[in-house]
Amino acid sequence: MNNVEDTLKGKIRDIPDYPKKGILFRDITPLLKDGSSFALCVDELAKRVSDIDFDYVVGIEARGFIIGAALAYKMKKGFIPIRKLGKLPYRRISKEYALEYGTATIEMHHDALAGGQEALLVDDLLATGGTAKAAAELVESVGGKVAGFAFVIELAGLNGRSMLGKSRIDTLMKY
Amino acid sequence: MNNVEDTLKGKIRDIPDYPKKGILFRDITPLLKDGSSFALCVDELAKRVSDIDFDYVVGIEARGFIIGAALAYKMKKGFIPIRKLGKLPYRRISKEYALEYGTATIEMHHDALAGGQEALLVDDLLATGGTAKAAAELVESVGGKVAGFAFVIELAGLNGRSMLGKSRIDTLMKY
Repeated sequence: MNNVEDTLKGKIRDIPDYPKKGILFRDITPLLKDGSSFALCVDELAKRVSDIDFDYVVGIEARGFIIGAALAYKMKKGFIPIRKLGKLPYRRISKEYALEYGTATIEMHHDALAGGQEALLVDDLLATGGTAKAAAELVESVGGKVAGFAFVIELAGLNGRSMLGKSRIDTLMKY
Repeated sequence: MNNVEDTLKGKIRDIPDYPKKGILFRDITPLLKDGSSFALCVDELAKRVSDIDFDYVVGIEARGFIIGAALAYKMKKGFIPIRKLGKLPYRRISKEYALEYGTATIEMHHDALAGGQEALLVDDLLATGGTAKAAAELVESVGGKVAGFAFVIELAGLNGRSMLGKSRIDTLMKY
């Protein structure tokens, strides 16, 4: 652990048995609420990915919007949203993926990326990697490329990295 | 109209008959995707609200997260999310409000604000003002105060301002 990770972990609220019994949920809202911790989180992510060539930040609804938009602003990049089913207004590409029980669908505008434009995919949490993998497939479906992934928290025991192939993955805190 | 408003309006995509027939939807995704327009939007909002004393940016799910988080980062403030029903992990306060058909519910952590801390409420769009009014009531329910509202787009014909009392309201584009 380094000092940044210690500092940020001090702002995570552990919530037992959420969303269901036996799960320890890592709540980032105290981190977001503390202006200097939020800035540290965004600045540190920007530093970690500073050697990656990419054109756009792609944020995954909803907490990925918070981290991704601030990071895009910081790095002077455009921001592209990946949203839940039925939330985007224009022509879109959908990707269904498996959850523990059932499935979920995420969507991206069909013209969001093109011609091999490179995306940095951003979300708050890397857990099983299912959502991130589906997001990467969406990016490729519309004609883009995945330059890397950035997450605030990685639940290392769930081994989400194994879902994401050889992609570059940066995370700020590991549990 | 000023130059900033012209520039930003040039990045809005009009989508007829969305989400239903007769509605002209103002899609901000092209604005977000253009890094310099997104930065201009955030910088201009920051300039407009620079004379308001406030402690936190409160962003309303989901597009309000994109604008609000970047604005919080820019202004070195903490960010507090108001989320849709059932999305926040900790003890929360709910507020139900009327839509054209039916109702919606938004929520805030019960300890998000306290002791008269001042919130700048941020969303992408001021339409009828129903969501913003409910968000302001949530802020007051948990013990905070509303220092003002900031929106990217105002649909002036719907007169959402009339729902928000004497509050300070800043918007970047009017239709």
